[in-house]
Amino acid sequence: MAGETIITVVGNLTADPELRYTQTGLPVANFTIASTPRNFDRQANEWKDGEALFLRASVWREFAEHVAGSLTKGSRVIATGRLKQRSYETREGEKRTSIELEVDEIGPSLRYATAQVTRAASSGGGQSRGQVSEEPWSTPGTQTAPAAGAPAAAGGDSWAAPGAYGDDTPF
Amino acid sequence: MAGETIITVVGNLTADPELRYTQTGLPVANFTIASTPRNFDRQANEWKDGEALFLRASVWREFAEHVAGSLTKGSRVIATGRLKQRSYETREGEKRTSIELEVDEIGPSLRYATAQVTRAASSGGGQSRGQVSEEPWSTPGTQTAPAAGAPAAAGGDSWAAPGAYGDDTPF
Amino acid sequence: MAGETIITVVGNLTADPELRYTQTGLPVANFTIASTPRNFDRQANEWKDGEALFLRASVWREFAEHVAGSLTKGSRVIATGRLKQRSYETREGEKRTSIELEVDEIGPSLRYATAQVTRAASSGGGQSRGQVSEEPWSTPGTQTAPAAGAPAAAGGDSWAAPGAYGDDTPF
Amino acid sequence: MAGETIITVVGNLTADPELRYTQTGLPVANFTIASTPRNFDRQANEWKDGEALFLRASVWREFAEHVAGSLTKGSRVIATGRLKQRSYETREGEKRTSIELEVDEIGPSLRYATAQVTRAASSGGGQSRGQVSEEPWSTPGTQTAPAAGAPAAAGGDSWAAPGAYGDDTPF
Repeated sequence: MAGETIITVVGNLTADPELRYTQTGLPVANFTIASTPRNFDRQANEWKDGEALFLRASVWREFAEHVAGSLTKGSRVIATGRLKQRSYETREGEKRTSIELEVDEIGPSLRYATAQVTRAASSGGGQSRGQVSEEPWSTPGTQTAPAAGAPAAAGGDSWAAPGAYGDDTPF
Repeated sequence: MAGETIITVVGNLTADPELRYTQTGLPVANFTIASTPRNFDRQANEWKDGEALFLRASVWREFAEHVAGSLTKGSRVIATGRLKQRSYETREGEKRTSIELEVDEIGPSLRYATAQVTRAASSGGGQSRGQVSEEPWSTPGTQTAPAAGAPAAAGGDSWAAPGAYGDDTPF
Repeated sequence: MAGETIITVVGNLTADPELRYTQTGLPVANFTIASTPRNFDRQANEWKDGEALFLRASVWREFAEHVAGSLTKGSRVIATGRLKQRSYETREGEKRTSIELEVDEIGPSLRYATAQVTRAASSGGGQSRGQVSEEPWSTPGTQTAPAAGAPAAAGGDSWAAPGAYGDDTPF
Repeated sequence: MAGETIITVVGNLTADPELRYTQTGLPVANFTIASTPRNFDRQANEWKDGEALFLRASVWREFAEHVAGSLTKGSRVIATGRLKQRSYETREGEKRTSIELEVDEIGPSLRYATAQVTRAASSGGGQSRGQVSEEPWSTPGTQTAPAAGAPAAAGGDSWAAPGAYGDDTPF
């Protein structure tokens, strides 16, 4: 994909994520992130909350189950993904559009919390799932090729996923 | 602050975060994030790993302790912050520059993992620390003002922190 | 400001920017950016347009006049700014929200076009308005301090502007 | 491509772009963007320049010629692209790395300037090159399908370009 509108949002979940399954059994989690900016009030000499941005978000597959099992109402998260617009019709036949976040990555923010992380059982090997290549300036003797031995297909189907099941979308 | 270069990075820690304390007792954690892009090889019809980007990162205060207590070598993270350039001189008197990430938010990615999140004991109340304002389209009767009752000063010193202790920087 | 949701959008203007003035004479320009992602269709082996994102945007002050004088319907632009949510009520008394872009920087994309650029007459000096500091690795003899002599106040009122005239907002 | 580190930078060119041609005649322009953040000094009650970030950037093909023909030393630009790391060896045999911006879109900022934009002669049709689809909420009678008639291949090879000529890279 190219030319997509990428965005990173930091905020709190307004409710527990809703986990559902498509007819073909594909998990999808939906939730809303409330992001509240803070402005420095020069007259009062203090920070004040600005108006919150509420962004509806969705995440797919095992990733959706990880989100539903890890985050709850109030969780502060950092999320990045692509901004998508949906057009729909109300019951009164009125045309509307909404803007949503198709999540590529999300996690609990560690700013005011700690987390105990558990690798998902279903995750295969592969550098992009957690193995680490050495930095290029490390001792030559210990240097391994980036992602050596990483099965390219392992992560590939996950990355390829978002565009792959248009007909399956539960909206 | 204004006009800063904001960036979001997704990748894996190349080692456990190093937690240190400044002379005045301020915690700081340093670590490197390796971010590996994936390219779709049209001839091979498969995804292949591109060349990794290694970005040195730092995080401050209680936040640093949360990071050091939650993330380890190999952790897949999502981080956002400001790109900073440092000029320094090598022992040979050569001038060099390096680019680093001053982290604003970081968390473990839930793409291939789950997380058990614990609110930090030191965190006060306040919407930006986890309480949730109702969405603007919720029932008027249940609607609360955004961040009502949030002590503005509570989060303020955290947000104000990054620029506040230049002399303290342990580099 | 802190904790705002920053976004960069690339797309085409759906119409000429509308330039208006607030009661106090402050210029504001409004326009819509249509951003169309492109997906690679592996079966057809070609790129296809995805669904467009339409983002309403606003820009203020002299900056608004520069935009209105430089961009027209169809212009391909690159814009960055802060995502803002507005709540409003329809004539039928229905509550709605919309998401808009408060533009921090915008310019015509040079991908498929060239541009002849003219410094605005009203612009003062100052590094952030075009003067250039030398790179830190340049010859010591010719090295000047970054932004030496730049009147800090010059750009300051522009940067401080977005939050400064809430009552003036022409919405 | 997926999993790349996307970044948007606003700053001034430190020199005119250098336009060169690869052995196969492919144009490439290189330049450095100096981005200076501004911090609000609460004690002095004024904005002050922070330390500048200098980011080396490159842009390819006709796009490179447009950049070289439109921007000069001091131009304030807005650029977005992918952060890339290069490893190289100094003449002394020392291993080094540098971080650069592979530009996807760049244009002159209209904050302190106006621009007269000219569509490139070589540009074909296609929505992503300037034609504009109607917004989804426009009158049904005038609504056209997004990018109707846009030759998908036209823009495709430009987007596909960055990864396509590794051997040609003039570094």
